[in-house]
Amino acid sequence: MQNVNRQWRLKARPQGMPTPETWEMVEAPVPDPGDGQIVARACWLSVDPYMRGRIAAGPSYARPVEPGEVMQGGGVGAVVRSRNPAFKPGDIVESMGWGWQDYATLNPQGTRKVDLAHGPMRHALGVLGMPGLTAYFAFLDVGAPRVGDVVVVSSAAGAVGQVVGQIAKLMGCRAVAVAGSAAKLAWCRELGYDAAVDYKSGDLRAALAAATPDGVDVYFDNTAGPIFDAVMERINLRARIVQCGTIDTYNRSGQPDTGLRHHRHMLVKRARWQGFLYTDYVHRAEEGLARLGAWVRDGRIRYREDIAEGIERMPQAFLRLLTGENLGKQLVRVAPEPGAA
Amino acid sequence: MQNVNRQWRLKARPQGMPTPETWEMVEAPVPDPGDGQIVARACWLSVDPYMRGRIAAGPSYARPVEPGEVMQGGGVGAVVRSRNPAFKPGDIVESMGWGWQDYATLNPQGTRKVDLAHGPMRHALGVLGMPGLTAYFAFLDVGAPRVGDVVVVSSAAGAVGQVVGQIAKLMGCRAVAVAGSAAKLAWCRELGYDAAVDYKSGDLRAALAAATPDGVDVYFDNTAGPIFDAVMERINLRARIVQCGTIDTYNRSGQPDTGLRHHRHMLVKRARWQGFLYTDYVHRAEEGLARLGAWVRDGRIRYREDIAEGIERMPQAFLRLLTGENLGKQLVRVAPEPGAA
Repeated sequence: MQNVNRQWRLKARPQGMPTPETWEMVEAPVPDPGDGQIVARACWLSVDPYMRGRIAAGPSYARPVEPGEVMQGGGVGAVVRSRNPAFKPGDIVESMGWGWQDYATLNPQGTRKVDLAHGPMRHALGVLGMPGLTAYFAFLDVGAPRVGDVVVVSSAAGAVGQVVGQIAKLMGCRAVAVAGSAAKLAWCRELGYDAAVDYKSGDLRAALAAATPDGVDVYFDNTAGPIFDAVMERINLRARIVQCGTIDTYNRSGQPDTGLRHHRHMLVKRARWQGFLYTDYVHRAEEGLARLGAWVRDGRIRYREDIAEGIERMPQAFLRLLTGENLGKQLVRVAPEPGAA
Repeated sequence: MQNVNRQWRLKARPQGMPTPETWEMVEAPVPDPGDGQIVARACWLSVDPYMRGRIAAGPSYARPVEPGEVMQGGGVGAVVRSRNPAFKPGDIVESMGWGWQDYATLNPQGTRKVDLAHGPMRHALGVLGMPGLTAYFAFLDVGAPRVGDVVVVSSAAGAVGQVVGQIAKLMGCRAVAVAGSAAKLAWCRELGYDAAVDYKSGDLRAALAAATPDGVDVYFDNTAGPIFDAVMERINLRARIVQCGTIDTYNRSGQPDTGLRHHRHMLVKRARWQGFLYTDYVHRAEEGLARLGAWVRDGRIRYREDIAEGIERMPQAFLRLLTGENLGKQLVRVAPEPGAA
């Protein structure tokens, strides 16, 4: 067993877009578990857009990471030491509180044993983890889709978006993807999206109008910003807008987010706009995993991952997300899975 | 019977704030009812903020008034001629489709017989009409208040706002008024609002913070604009925002409404923001009138009206609304009530 614990610690809060120098890698001793705890070694670490909020100074839904602290994030791997009878060495576990490090000290609450019958362990960070469950609950509970609805999804090829589009199709909706490259658009179409619009090329408003001749009933928004404005022009009476992410607002150098306001339009359309956070649905994870797991196993939901190799690449993998270079759920492979060659 | 029908017709669409010259008064013949119709003479005409939207060029929820047409609006008065067996001369009727005129030709659909047992006929344009029912359904159905919630209401002394605050108190909420003069604030306090904030004087953000030490659970918004932004800073987790009016956005000379955007905040607070239009609740009017009528009769809901005298003053009365000079529901007395001296 490797005898150091590589950790990425926050060096300083970024103003605007982070850079690789926002964090620094240090080598710490491999920790020992306290009473009731376990120590697990990461096979996969996750990078997700929400992490940008965790290194911002402003108030958010969770405590921010302070400079000098290990960067927050989810991971999956194998238990190496346990002082909890519910876990034994070799168990595969997932936690949102892993941190950007090889070895995590985990408490039983918030640590989930991963059932490999559902799929490869890395899925526990994606389609069968927080992003997939976010898609499931945010779309179904907040978006409240009905058969025949037109559903637009921004960041449609991302970790959450690709699941939303496929659930929309399973429900008999028309699904329209908004994404930022030809490869992403092609993947969205392959997943079953009925139309795909590139927000980086040409006239977004015209392209959206062409893709949504009957307007928009549900907008699943991961971006905010100009994509939001373009979709709002297309909403139908009693449209539902799910605010699941705001990646476009993250890197504004501390400037307030200003732009078009939609108060009048909200009234005229009697629209409903609601924020979503997976935290509120953690207690219903099993319910969502049962459905998503079955769909993944029988091929009704497909899932693309974008894999970076080595813990050294954590910052770069995260920055790929913020600039939209990834295609699919961005993961970092940190160590071989147990039993792998 | 007066033998001319004075009508206010739209002269030209205003850019920005309308002026008295936006309309012109003409004298037309008193109309005869067609088969199934009635003709009624107005005792009271209503002016309401929504009318600003009806003379704007942009798309809205209803057909705009075209230049040359009689200005749209509600009225209440007595039937003078009937070609419908359900109505006889002398019946008191109310219609949202009256128009700014002495004599309206009305179809039975959309014409409501007014029960004077509930209160004076002018209430049919206010607390026992569209504004009161708007308050009732928008607050209860969309605001979804719970006992103990902190409820902030903008335009709190207006036709809708004064009812919202009193229903909030009946439900065990803390009610906080935002209004624009010392007289309005005093009236709000008299109605039972726990606190009242003047948006025109001093530091609105600080005053709101002092009035809502426990944050805001329901924001009943009639204004949009800077008041909205100040209240948004105070919202609690899972706050509900009712977009009932947008009076601050109406007179921008065709400029788009731009300013602070709240996407990130909507997500972090998991807030729900929803547009309301009374039209969607017309079919439930009796349900609301039964409650409101009882509350008005037993004095649990009080209602202030601001009365202008004479149809000549329709434009001025309407402009008072847009500039916030009125205190309470703005009405225009057009002719004496039948039976009055």
